[in-house]
Amino acid sequence: MNDTFLKACRGGKTDYTPVWFMRQAARFLPEYRRVAAKADFLTICRTPELAAEVTVQPVDALGVDAAIFFSDITTTMVPMGIKLEYADSKGPYYPEPLRTGADIDRLTVPEPEEGLVFVYEAIKILNKELADRVPLIGFAGAPFTMSAFMVEGSMSHAFTKTRSLIFSEPGLFHRLMDKVSRFTARYLKAQAKAGARALMLFDSFAGMLGPKDFIEFNFPYLKSTVADLKTAGVPVIYFGLGQHGALEQIGSLGADVIGVDYGISLDNAVSRLGSGVTVQGNIEPYVLLQPEMPMRQRVAEVLAQGRLARAHIFNLGHGVPTNTPVENARAMVEMVHELSRK
Amino acid sequence: MNDTFLKACRGGKTDYTPVWFMRQAARFLPEYRRVAAKADFLTICRTPELAAEVTVQPVDALGVDAAIFFSDITTTMVPMGIKLEYADSKGPYYPEPLRTGADIDRLTVPEPEEGLVFVYEAIKILNKELADRVPLIGFAGAPFTMSAFMVEGSMSHAFTKTRSLIFSEPGLFHRLMDKVSRFTARYLKAQAKAGARALMLFDSFAGMLGPKDFIEFNFPYLKSTVADLKTAGVPVIYFGLGQHGALEQIGSLGADVIGVDYGISLDNAVSRLGSGVTVQGNIEPYVLLQPEMPMRQRVAEVLAQGRLARAHIFNLGHGVPTNTPVENARAMVEMVHELSRK
Repeated sequence: MNDTFLKACRGGKTDYTPVWFMRQAARFLPEYRRVAAKADFLTICRTPELAAEVTVQPVDALGVDAAIFFSDITTTMVPMGIKLEYADSKGPYYPEPLRTGADIDRLTVPEPEEGLVFVYEAIKILNKELADRVPLIGFAGAPFTMSAFMVEGSMSHAFTKTRSLIFSEPGLFHRLMDKVSRFTARYLKAQAKAGARALMLFDSFAGMLGPKDFIEFNFPYLKSTVADLKTAGVPVIYFGLGQHGALEQIGSLGADVIGVDYGISLDNAVSRLGSGVTVQGNIEPYVLLQPEMPMRQRVAEVLAQGRLARAHIFNLGHGVPTNTPVENARAMVEMVHELSRK
Repeated sequence: MNDTFLKACRGGKTDYTPVWFMRQAARFLPEYRRVAAKADFLTICRTPELAAEVTVQPVDALGVDAAIFFSDITTTMVPMGIKLEYADSKGPYYPEPLRTGADIDRLTVPEPEEGLVFVYEAIKILNKELADRVPLIGFAGAPFTMSAFMVEGSMSHAFTKTRSLIFSEPGLFHRLMDKVSRFTARYLKAQAKAGARALMLFDSFAGMLGPKDFIEFNFPYLKSTVADLKTAGVPVIYFGLGQHGALEQIGSLGADVIGVDYGISLDNAVSRLGSGVTVQGNIEPYVLLQPEMPMRQRVAEVLAQGRLARAHIFNLGHGVPTNTPVENARAMVEMVHELSRK
């Protein structure tokens, strides 16, 4: 197996910089669109054979150094007792969002097998399909992101309902975070047990709170979750989108790898995160639309900044744009490999 | 006139810290809702008597140290030749967004009087109504924010059309920025001529680009606009929402005051902006929903951090939440005045 990615996670030296892309299994790939033509989004997530198929596609199409399990962060919460639906206009959403203490008290903290067997089944298929190729990353939404999503019900600009709840009834929000973080840890450890070789927490809404409130309402639960995940024996990756005010704390989280978005430069992030973590990121995703020469220069810049960290996993600073030409994504992977070998 | 705000803009000592709130003229005020019951949003913006009336309301209701002209950033662009409409579901939007070079070439850079006479008329009414009270801040969307809004057409999560244009046709985007910044400077100087005592650029989408691209595609036009505005002889305020990666450059912009959002702590921002600017900000707006004691503690913390700058204008780190109780907003203004006198 190509273990470049796993070595870099643990801070080891590698022959070249490993690379994968957030949202690498998606509509910009013709292979994905063929699967999506016969099954809707939640069906792909919940059918082990289909989820495994689209997880492998970018490994074939792009030559990346890691696969990430195809799923959606919203699916994970269903066993806790919240309904999930999908609409083309807004993606997956919770039609009965959490608004009261009673709503929060009704959530359960089930065993990880309940309702999510399709995840572990898909991972077992992937163990075979990826055996001699690249490691599989398991993932979940971070506890804060899932709590906020369940309070809002669907994607939100300003998270007005979540922030209203936090500042008017902080105790309620802490109760929610406690339940969600306990279940998230169970779920991710079960992914590792099924065969995931690294575990990633996506905190897509981490930047919704300022640094002080991030440290009070998000960080303690994140820290306990990461400590719990470390017992699974695989590297843990944290990506807190938009949280630029608490990077010093995030560096002390206990995660092996910290993902960095494109909102700050990687050298700035490295100097604040400290030397104890590997960094993952952070090229502006729309550089994927550029011609070869400017793209090459941008890749070289990010690689140079990444050398300041103990190790660097190249990635985008956010997901792959839908209008990315596949050949450009493949060219970027090759550039990362070629330029980092020098 | 209470000139505490203007003194602080220029870095002078004041008896207490001046305070106003972004979006202080809005639906959370019952007086505003009474006006909104008889006229729609764009009608309020375009009717000098109504715009002036709602501009004064928060001065009466909250006791703030500055008024900000009631308008919407989208209205400013109409004289350049773009259509504007309003829908309750998405607010003001441009039904024919800019997508091609021909679209951009059709935009004109008109004299500021064309199509915006209602703005200068409203400011003249406000000169009389606010004469012995507080200064009026004139404002516009920053050139990048308006260019991005015209490319997208309406509010956007990821600004996919703008970023696609920037990275695939950078020359086109530069042409757009050049036109928009020239018109924005003309428009704001005309506001100062009509009586505005300070000028503010709202760069609501400044964080959409990473620091490198901010410096290439946004900053040069911002810098020329600010230099042009300084010839009007009034303080210039810049607020770049979400742009946390280029604060050192923003400190060198030439603006008198830099607004800071709640995503980073004010002391961190001050240390990166340098000692040449007054800072404005940055309490988490939802603190307005808290009871008195936690609110008081948060106000004291922001005031203590603000003392590190050459001068501080207290404000929220984003707009007033719609569900803010008026008495809480008034209490926060009083706390700022009281605690900063000590």
